Amino acid sequence: MAAKLQRVLDEISQQMRASTDWGEVASYIPELGEVRPDQFAISVATADGGLFSAGDFQTRFSAQSITKVFTLAIALGRAGDQLWHRVGREPSGTAFNSIVQLEHEQGRPRNPFVNAGAIVTTDEVLAGREPREALAEFLGFVRAAAEDDDIHINADVARSETAHGHRNAAHAHFLASFGNLKNPPEKVLGTYFHHCATEMTTQQLAKAGRFLIGTGSYPRMVSLDRVRRLNALMLTCGHYDGSGEFAYRVGLPAKSGVGGGILGVVPGQASIAVWSPGLNRNGNSKLGTEAMEQLAREMDWSVF
Amino acid sequence: MAAKLQRVLDEISQQMRASTDWGEVASYIPELGEVRPDQFAISVATADGGLFSAGDFQTRFSAQSITKVFTLAIALGRAGDQLWHRVGREPSGTAFNSIVQLEHEQGRPRNPFVNAGAIVTTDEVLAGREPREALAEFLGFVRAAAEDDDIHINADVARSETAHGHRNAAHAHFLASFGNLKNPPEKVLGTYFHHCATEMTTQQLAKAGRFLIGTGSYPRMVSLDRVRRLNALMLTCGHYDGSGEFAYRVGLPAKSGVGGGILGVVPGQASIAVWSPGLNRNGNSKLGTEAMEQLAREMDWSVF
Amino acid sequence: MAAKLQRVLDEISQQMRASTDWGEVASYIPELGEVRPDQFAISVATADGGLFSAGDFQTRFSAQSITKVFTLAIALGRAGDQLWHRVGREPSGTAFNSIVQLEHEQGRPRNPFVNAGAIVTTDEVLAGREPREALAEFLGFVRAAAEDDDIHINADVARSETAHGHRNAAHAHFLASFGNLKNPPEKVLGTYFHHCATEMTTQQLAKAGRFLIGTGSYPRMVSLDRVRRLNALMLTCGHYDGSGEFAYRVGLPAKSGVGGGILGVVPGQASIAVWSPGLNRNGNSKLGTEAMEQLAREMDWSVF
Amino acid sequence: MAAKLQRVLDEISQQMRASTDWGEVASYIPELGEVRPDQFAISVATADGGLFSAGDFQTRFSAQSITKVFTLAIALGRAGDQLWHRVGREPSGTAFNSIVQLEHEQGRPRNPFVNAGAIVTTDEVLAGREPREALAEFLGFVRAAAEDDDIHINADVARSETAHGHRNAAHAHFLASFGNLKNPPEKVLGTYFHHCATEMTTQQLAKAGRFLIGTGSYPRMVSLDRVRRLNALMLTCGHYDGSGEFAYRVGLPAKSGVGGGILGVVPGQASIAVWSPGLNRNGNSKLGTEAMEQLAREMDWSVF
Repeated sequence: MAAKLQRVLDEISQQMRASTDWGEVASYIPELGEVRPDQFAISVATADGGLFSAGDFQTRFSAQSITKVFTLAIALGRAGDQLWHRVGREPSGTAFNSIVQLEHEQGRPRNPFVNAGAIVTTDEVLAGREPREALAEFLGFVRAAAEDDDIHINADVARSETAHGHRNAAHAHFLASFGNLKNPPEKVLGTYFHHCATEMTTQQLAKAGRFLIGTGSYPRMVSLDRVRRLNALMLTCGHYDGSGEFAYRVGLPAKSGVGGGILGVVPGQASIAVWSPGLNRNGNSKLGTEAMEQLAREMDWSVF
Repeated sequence: MAAKLQRVLDEISQQMRASTDWGEVASYIPELGEVRPDQFAISVATADGGLFSAGDFQTRFSAQSITKVFTLAIALGRAGDQLWHRVGREPSGTAFNSIVQLEHEQGRPRNPFVNAGAIVTTDEVLAGREPREALAEFLGFVRAAAEDDDIHINADVARSETAHGHRNAAHAHFLASFGNLKNPPEKVLGTYFHHCATEMTTQQLAKAGRFLIGTGSYPRMVSLDRVRRLNALMLTCGHYDGSGEFAYRVGLPAKSGVGGGILGVVPGQASIAVWSPGLNRNGNSKLGTEAMEQLAREMDWSVF
Repeated sequence: MAAKLQRVLDEISQQMRASTDWGEVASYIPELGEVRPDQFAISVATADGGLFSAGDFQTRFSAQSITKVFTLAIALGRAGDQLWHRVGREPSGTAFNSIVQLEHEQGRPRNPFVNAGAIVTTDEVLAGREPREALAEFLGFVRAAAEDDDIHINADVARSETAHGHRNAAHAHFLASFGNLKNPPEKVLGTYFHHCATEMTTQQLAKAGRFLIGTGSYPRMVSLDRVRRLNALMLTCGHYDGSGEFAYRVGLPAKSGVGGGILGVVPGQASIAVWSPGLNRNGNSKLGTEAMEQLAREMDWSVF
Repeated sequence: MAAKLQRVLDEISQQMRASTDWGEVASYIPELGEVRPDQFAISVATADGGLFSAGDFQTRFSAQSITKVFTLAIALGRAGDQLWHRVGREPSGTAFNSIVQLEHEQGRPRNPFVNAGAIVTTDEVLAGREPREALAEFLGFVRAAAEDDDIHINADVARSETAHGHRNAAHAHFLASFGNLKNPPEKVLGTYFHHCATEMTTQQLAKAGRFLIGTGSYPRMVSLDRVRRLNALMLTCGHYDGSGEFAYRVGLPAKSGVGGGILGVVPGQASIAVWSPGLNRNGNSKLGTEAMEQLAREMDWSVF
């Protein structure tokens, strides 16, 4: 498989780099808006310990919402199934930052991947501690999963998110008004914006995502049972109101971030990280989605 | 009319005081929750300068949302019809603190009497100044309208609202995320919570409300044309999702507050203030609504 | 007043006829779409028996939703306040044909003027009878109110509405699914489409609307108490999601129809009918609304 | 595997039959309400041609919404990807019979498994023909897939659904009002109610569902590519607003019906049919869901 996989990645990378439409880079904070759009990287970490890459796989990018997967894993480790009293497990059918359901459903977010839900899992991880302690635990988890200590948070990005983050602040206060935050909104938001500002290369991300494969030679961060459930949530809720579409076209659990990254999982076989900063109209990486679809097809990777 | 009016007020007051069901006092902040429920007051200021009262008309209560009428009058004086680019004039059909429409309608609140709308008018009044300057203008308006300088803001109530005001904070940040706040959310909220914490007796409130009669001997704060429009807004939007019910039963423009007060207007004839702190399930004063209905019927007061 | 009123009507009519933008004629059924847009009529019937008109006041037009006022009056006469168990009295804040609230509120329409609400009042009028019996009662009411037997239903329009009325059929079946129809949906729809297809001139409509004035020399169809409540509903709900705007600009209870007519009321003084078939983007007569606003301003007519 | 599988099925069946809480049988039509609740059946058809059963596997039950999978397969065969212009592929996040999204999204149902979506696929299958022709094609597909001609439609159930089906009628007319029905609503509804009234045993259903396994010895009704996409839709949308929960707990594509049946798929390995008529509060078979979860766990069957 190794030879074929490397060949497929090279082909995809070459094809993507020849693209004439790279999509639109997110620009709601200056730090993200300054990223050059014509970049592409892809990495695959296999269950047997292989690591295959193509493109700009040594360039770091802002992981953003992809970090919600790691925060969820940590929150589940801390709270267990108690977490589900505070957040649901259903696709939302609405945008990542919609507040409508939160009102209709009395402050319980639909799932841990919409912003409000991720704010709740961050609150669970914070658990009365100082943000830096919670962030240390978060970074510890990601670094251990990736077996790489050179993974860091970009404080400038986090600060800029804070300055422009009125919509997320609205969610945090709304959650608090329903009694669904244990820590002060400002502290939760600070922690949330910081873990979202984690930077990684696709190589680092693919390695950090191996714990979702469920079987193989790499650090086991959580039980197989929990891995399957994280994958179920990624498949049904990982792309907000584009989750059904992604499942239909790609057929793999995955989580996207507004920085242009996508982390995908082939249960039992591989962890995939792609990155291209230009987004499609759903706010997911345009070339990243195309690359993921092509890779799944070429390698015959599908959970279905 | 004077004799009949006084007799009717006395009868109403007597009847209300004999009530066995006073409703539930608002308890979301301690300062409001401590108010004794078995209180009732009613005052009517007539176009020709009369002032009639019954019950606990010398007890001060927290005006709360009733102050939105004064803030709106000031904001219209400052911004004119430009204000309507930022806030609508339609009944919301939803609760006073619902955030759903705000998302559907891109951060433009339905009307100036739902909380989000009042936050926008407060922002307009603030206009880059310090909160205390805006509050001085607000108090100046209310005192001039009432011809009474002994009207004050209860800072304890304002502080308590701030501490418990996550839902309003969510609205302010949500508005800011759509670019519909000119001042920082914290400043606007502080100003908003303070003007809501204004305390008055029903006598003071009835006198302060005379400027909405439209004709007669009292300080004219705004033009007749604007008076009519304020009354139109009070009639269609003054009781949130109970506005149609109030118009149907009472037939007068009015604005209620969670402190148990209601300010009503008989165009061309009188300004009415009632107060009883117990609320019905719609969040309006239970006995206050009943008293207003009875007064309108007995005096044959209706705009229809 | 008579001389001034006639002069104002003539001025308005002249001005409207000089208009270069007549709005768009409703075209969802061929019969309405064929109406020439450049027509305008206005009539005022006064409490003391006067009748003043200008423009095309002898041309008949399709009353459409204006008939909901008459159906409501009849339904209230039949069911009294029991009717309010089946339909609410609150502004909807949504379009006339929105089905969203009907689902959220378990099949109880917000008010009798949105389509679903009018279907319920029609069902109440039908009351187990054959449609022609209910329609005979309806026509009897309108003719008696107008003191004019030459008012008829256009069966072609009714049939065309039936053929194109899938949205209303959806509402009727939805109501039936919640048990809020007593008669078969098909029968109720047939009756509804027929009373909507009533044709009148503005003279006939102004006379038919006199019963809403509340005092004066004309057939009293309902009690003063009920008149006031009908006016309250027209003011808060008469223009769907444009009701607040109309109340703000015109300040009179009124009900519009998609045929381009508007029936307005000056309590204690007059009944107004305007007609111009071109609609504004809210689905109300464009010139009709402008004429109503101008008339109210010139005559100093406002309930506020 | 065969021995273990039979043992697991026997254990599950025994355990379920010892249940003290069978859930509530659907009672919105008399024909379903009369079914005895204390029944349970489970069948598994494997890719290599095996068939394993336990419990009441020879009792026929009403397949209801499970038939939407077969209708969708036929509609995709007829229209290909053109179908997706008429219906979406996203989880709805709302109840199976909610009409709210249909209004917000202009008559395009969220996915083919909510009622409105299934009415659209039925309309596509009908394609201008008479209902009996479309139903013949439908039955032909199911019988061929099951390799069993003894599968029939219960006309009494279909008639009863028609008589009580106002909510579905509302959906059909609503779709028609947006121009999203090609055939008359009554014809589409008749066809829809009839294919929903198909009766099968779990053995027949498990065999009919084999075409979703994707590989193995059985009639291949559709391409592997399409099989995967059907499975993706079943996983993300198969249980309405309980789809995320089912994916989380069971981890297999599945489609439930109000008759108490569930059809599940283990890609590459097996097709599963369970039946128990009592429903949980989400409207899915109570014991059926528990059995499916237990079977998946015991056999280590999960797509994740």
